[in-house]
Amino acid sequence: MTTTVLLPSCFALIRDIPDFPKPGIVFKDITPLLADGCCFQAMIEQLAAVCERERLNPDLIACPEARGFILGAALAFRLGIGFVPIRKPNKLPHDKARVEYALEYGVDAVEMHRDAIAPGRRVLLVDDLLATGGTMAACAQLVETHAAQVVGCLFLLELAGLSGRERLAAYPTHALLSVV
Amino acid sequence: MTTTVLLPSCFALIRDIPDFPKPGIVFKDITPLLADGCCFQAMIEQLAAVCERERLNPDLIACPEARGFILGAALAFRLGIGFVPIRKPNKLPHDKARVEYALEYGVDAVEMHRDAIAPGRRVLLVDDLLATGGTMAACAQLVETHAAQVVGCLFLLELAGLSGRERLAAYPTHALLSVV
Repeated sequence: MTTTVLLPSCFALIRDIPDFPKPGIVFKDITPLLADGCCFQAMIEQLAAVCERERLNPDLIACPEARGFILGAALAFRLGIGFVPIRKPNKLPHDKARVEYALEYGVDAVEMHRDAIAPGRRVLLVDDLLATGGTMAACAQLVETHAAQVVGCLFLLELAGLSGRERLAAYPTHALLSVV
Repeated sequence: MTTTVLLPSCFALIRDIPDFPKPGIVFKDITPLLADGCCFQAMIEQLAAVCERERLNPDLIACPEARGFILGAALAFRLGIGFVPIRKPNKLPHDKARVEYALEYGVDAVEMHRDAIAPGRRVLLVDDLLATGGTMAACAQLVETHAAQVVGCLFLLELAGLSGRERLAAYPTHALLSVV
């Protein structure tokens, strides 16, 4: 449950965009970090280091679209394991499982192919940002409907004030950087 | 302009889904390949090998969402270079450039942050599938509005019957697998 703060010069590339996607929200824009080859490399190596230090030993990485794909796919390559996309409704072409979750106003859902993960697999969930944890909790539920095990939830950045970590209390949860 | 066919056992994992996303279309589903750690690794290594063989020497990889992110981010990590997301409208938070392109019925658009790519950069475009080439041509135009250079367009899979390669004739275009 530790939060490792490293590579401050890379984290300094994350910029605040006020009033996006709506007034009053400050969006954390990680695209300048991704565009820096050294920082991108360091971020993925640091995520891999958390996996090793915490002995997560995943068989697969699963990620919600779309920014999650960026971190998760590079980390899957780094670890030599497979990658499973978790998508918004009606994007995946084959037989799907779906989990719905509440938003501030309304409902959203995530979907995964029913044959994507064999029972008993050790699955690591990866996304860029832990805010309220609603999306990630739904992803964890999707994995568990496959009788697979969520070995951890891994993030680049955590907004600690939103208590997403409490929502994911059933799983080892790690972020490289935590901000209020 | 060569098409390298390798790793047939991995390519055999790509499955046809008839009538997705609409009747008459046969969707090429690459998710079983992505979920196989060895094949995912081999695919990215093969994409990296094309970059080296063709001396593309990119400074950055740019990809359209969302499946493009999976291949492109892993390849950016493999090559030690930065990653730039190209997104559907209204997803990116900062000042954006936009290019619209025609669909069979209607118009779609891709957007990129205006400060994402410095002039003169060598940019490699990556996506999973080359069909008509419309999205990739729009991505190339976006990169060129930054006075940057598109050094190539790289795909896992090419549907040769749709002549997407002709639309990208201005750029070195490579696919690991070509099917009719």
